[in-house]
Amino acid sequence: MLLLPSNGLSVVAIGHHLPEVLFAPRPLLAVVEAESTPILLTGVLLSLVVIYLASKIGGEIASRWNLPPVLGELVGGVVVGLSAFHAIVFADNASAADSGVMLVLQAIYHMSPAVASSVFESQSEVISILAELGVIILLFEIGLESDLRQLKAVGVQAVVVACVGVAVPFAAGTAGLMVIFAVPAIPAIFAGAALTATSIGITSKVLSELGQLQSKEGQIIVGAAVIDDVLGIIVLAVVTSLAKTGTVDVSNVIFSIVGASIFLSGSILLGSFFSKGFTLIVESLKTRGNVVIPAFIFVYFMAFLGNAIHLEAILGAFAAGLVLDDTDERNELDKLVKPVADLLVPIFFISVGARTDLNVLNPAIPENKSGLIVAIFLIFIAIVGKLITGWVVFGQPGINRLAIGVGMIPRGEVGLVFAGIGAASGTIDKPLQVAIILMVIVTTFLAPPFLRIAFDRFPNPDSQLNNSLPKFK
Amino acid sequence: MLLLPSNGLSVVAIGHHLPEVLFAPRPLLAVVEAESTPILLTGVLLSLVVIYLASKIGGEIASRWNLPPVLGELVGGVVVGLSAFHAIVFADNASAADSGVMLVLQAIYHMSPAVASSVFESQSEVISILAELGVIILLFEIGLESDLRQLKAVGVQAVVVACVGVAVPFAAGTAGLMVIFAVPAIPAIFAGAALTATSIGITSKVLSELGQLQSKEGQIIVGAAVIDDVLGIIVLAVVTSLAKTGTVDVSNVIFSIVGASIFLSGSILLGSFFSKGFTLIVESLKTRGNVVIPAFIFVYFMAFLGNAIHLEAILGAFAAGLVLDDTDERNELDKLVKPVADLLVPIFFISVGARTDLNVLNPAIPENKSGLIVAIFLIFIAIVGKLITGWVVFGQPGINRLAIGVGMIPRGEVGLVFAGIGAASGTIDKPLQVAIILMVIVTTFLAPPFLRIAFDRFPNPDSQLNNSLPKFK
Repeated sequence: MLLLPSNGLSVVAIGHHLPEVLFAPRPLLAVVEAESTPILLTGVLLSLVVIYLASKIGGEIASRWNLPPVLGELVGGVVVGLSAFHAIVFADNASAADSGVMLVLQAIYHMSPAVASSVFESQSEVISILAELGVIILLFEIGLESDLRQLKAVGVQAVVVACVGVAVPFAAGTAGLMVIFAVPAIPAIFAGAALTATSIGITSKVLSELGQLQSKEGQIIVGAAVIDDVLGIIVLAVVTSLAKTGTVDVSNVIFSIVGASIFLSGSILLGSFFSKGFTLIVESLKTRGNVVIPAFIFVYFMAFLGNAIHLEAILGAFAAGLVLDDTDERNELDKLVKPVADLLVPIFFISVGARTDLNVLNPAIPENKSGLIVAIFLIFIAIVGKLITGWVVFGQPGINRLAIGVGMIPRGEVGLVFAGIGAASGTIDKPLQVAIILMVIVTTFLAPPFLRIAFDRFPNPDSQLNNSLPKFK
Repeated sequence: MLLLPSNGLSVVAIGHHLPEVLFAPRPLLAVVEAESTPILLTGVLLSLVVIYLASKIGGEIASRWNLPPVLGELVGGVVVGLSAFHAIVFADNASAADSGVMLVLQAIYHMSPAVASSVFESQSEVISILAELGVIILLFEIGLESDLRQLKAVGVQAVVVACVGVAVPFAAGTAGLMVIFAVPAIPAIFAGAALTATSIGITSKVLSELGQLQSKEGQIIVGAAVIDDVLGIIVLAVVTSLAKTGTVDVSNVIFSIVGASIFLSGSILLGSFFSKGFTLIVESLKTRGNVVIPAFIFVYFMAFLGNAIHLEAILGAFAAGLVLDDTDERNELDKLVKPVADLLVPIFFISVGARTDLNVLNPAIPENKSGLIVAIFLIFIAIVGKLITGWVVFGQPGINRLAIGVGMIPRGEVGLVFAGIGAASGTIDKPLQVAIILMVIVTTFLAPPFLRIAFDRFPNPDSQLNNSLPKFK
C-alpha cells in the first residue's frame, strides 16, 4: 500500500487493466510499479516464509544428525532453489515463470506478464538486499565474537597457526588449480582464498560442546581462528578487488592489502575512541533502542564506508564488530544482535543455496567431471593444509597437535561467504563454485567427529563429563 | 556484489561506461541493473544511517522535552524528508536529482542518468518495503502488548469506553468534514477513522510513568485501548477496502467488517491451537532462533494471508501478536522482538515524516487555509470525542472520569498508521493528511501533561513516589 503514488485515486481505479501503450515505456513502467507494490509486499512476505521454513527445517535436521545447522540451511536453500523446487529463484538466473513464489502471486492477483516480470525483478532485488544485510550482520557478529585481547593471551602460537593455516592452503590450492587443472589465475586465487577460512563460529561451538574451550589447545585454536578471520577478510577484500579489475596486478594486490589493512587497523584504532564514546552515547540516550540503534548506525556506516572506498561492506561490518566488542555494552549488544542476525543471516545462506545449481555436479554430463575432480583436490588441500598447522606449534611439549590441526579445518560461514561472493560476481564458474561449496560442506561435516577423536587421544577428566553426547546447538 | 549475474567477467569490465543502445531497452536495463547493484547496497546503507540518525535525534529531543519519542521520530522524518533537507525522498514524489543520498552516491560512483534513476527507484522500493516490514512488526508488537484476558478482567466498562471512543469521533469527524467542509465521502471516512485510534503504547507508557497502571482508571484505560486497537484495525481494514473500491458501498462495508472479523476472530480461534503447538515447536527446536524464527514465520504468513485475501498485512500481523501473546514464550518473544522492532519501526515513522510535505500548511498559499481550519476541527473532535468516554462509565461511583477520557486521547502510532496509509494510497489529499498528522501530534502532545493534571484531582499515595519527575522512555 505505502508505495502507491499520492496523486489521486486514478491508479487504484486502473485495477488490473494496464494501458497498452507501445511507445511510452516510461509512464507504462510507472503504472506497472504503482500497480505492483502491494503485490510486491505479498511476494516478499511469502518469500521470507519459505526462506525461514527452509532454513529452520534444514538447520534442525542437520542438528539432529550432529552436523552444523548452517549446512542444513545451505542444503535447505538448495532444496527450495534453482536445483530443486524453484520456490526461491532470482531474476539474474531465472524468469518470473520459473518462480514458485510468483506462481502463487499469479494465482492471487492475475497479473499481466509485464506486471509479473516487474514484481519478480523487484522481489529479487529486495531479497538480495536483505541477504546482503544478512551477511553484513553475520560479519558484524563474527567481529563481536572475535576478541583482540584474547589474541594477546594465547600469544605467538596462535599467530603462527593462523598464518600457516592461511598461507599453505592458499598457495597449494592456487598453484595446484593453475598447474594441475589449468584454471585461470583469478578463479584459482579465489578458490585458494576460500581454502584459507576457518569458521570461528563452528570451531568455538564444537570446542564448547566438547568441553575443550578453556584447554590450551582450545585457546590456541580459538585465537588462531580469530586471526584467521581477520586474515580471511583481508584475503577476501584482495581477491574481490582482483576480480573487479580483472587482472592479477601485484601493485593492485599490495594496494588492496595496504588499503584493507589501513581501513581495518585505522577503523579499529579510531574505533577505540568511538568505543569509549559509544558507552557515553548509550548512557545518555533515554529512548528505546538506545544500544541497538547507535550500534547499527556504526555498523551500517562502516559497511557504507567499506563499499564507498571500493573495498567491501562486510569488511566495515567486521571492523565495527571488533570495535564494539571492546565496549561495556558488549554482552547486551550480543543479546540484541542475536534475534536480528537470526532473522537476516538465514536469508543469506538460503540465497547462497538457492543460487547453487547442483546440476553441474551431474557426472553424466562430461564437462562436469572436471568439477568433481577439482572438488576432491580442494578437499584434500583443505584438510592437509590445516592439519599441518598443529605441527608448527613450538615450545609446547605434549600439546595435542592433531586436535589443533583438526580444529582449524571447518570452513563454515566464512568459506560460504567466499563461494557466494565469488559465484555472484561471476569470478568463478559453476563447477568451481560447487567444488568450493562441496569442500566447505565436507570440511565442516568432518571436523566435529574428527575433533572428538583427536581430543580422545588425550582425554582430560573435565571434558569427560560433557563429552557423552555432544550436540550441535 | 551478490547480485551481479554469474555469466562471466564482462559486466565487471564494462565499468561505468554504459553502451548507448537506443532501441534495445531490455539489454540496457539488464546492464543498468547489473552495474547498479553494489551501488544500490551503498545507497540503502547510507539511507538507513540517515534514517536511524534522524529517528534517534528526533526521539531523544522529544524525550527530553517530556514528549513521546515517536513524535520526535516523525519530526525527524520531516526534517530529513521532502519538507526540508531532501536526504530521504521517494521515487513517487521526487526524482534522483532531488535526493540527498543519490547526490552522495553520484559523487562516489559517477553514474550515468539512467543508472542513477534505476538505483534511485530500486532504493525507494527497498526502503519502502523495509518500512512496510516495520509497520508489520509494530502491529505485531501492539498485538503482543494487547491481552484478551485483561479485557475480561476490566469487563464491560472497557468495552463501553472503547466503543463510544470509536463511534463518537468517527461519526462526528466524518459528518463534520462532509457537512461543514464538503469533503468527499471516502477521504472524510478515512479522516474520521484516524480519529478513532488510541495509542496503547503511549497510553500505557504514560500510565506506568505516572504510577497509575494498576489503578481502576488505569485498568479501564488500558482495557479500552486494547479493544480500541482491535476496533481500529477493523476500521482501518474497512476504510482501506473502501479506498480500493473507490465507492461507499454498504454491502462492501458489511463484507469488510465480516471479512475482517472472521479473519481476526478466526485466526485468534485457530491461533489458540497454534499457540499450544508453538510451545511444542519452540521446545523441540535445538538450533539458534528457535523462538524468533517460528514466531516470524507465523507473523509473516499471517501478514501474507492478510494481503492475499485483500485485507491488510498489518491485520494479520496484529492477529499473530494476539495469538503469540497467549503462549509461554510471550516474555522471551517480547525481548527478542524488541531489537528487531527498534531497527525496523523507525524506518516506517521516518518514511511517514519524510513523505509529509509541510508546505501545504503554509497559510500564505490560499488553498492551504482550509487545511489549517480542518486541522483545528479535527483536533477539537479528537479531544471532545474521547473526553466524553469518561462520562459513559457506569456503576463506578467516585471514579476519575476526566482521567479516563484524557487517557484515551493520544493517537500515537495507530493514528500515524492511518495517516501514512491514507496518504500513500492517495485516498486523502495533502492538506487533509497534514491535518490528520497535526491532530495526531497535538493529541499525543497534550495527553501526557493533561493526564498528570487529571490524576492530580484524585492523588493516591502510591503514585506520589513515582510522580515527581515523569519521563518518557
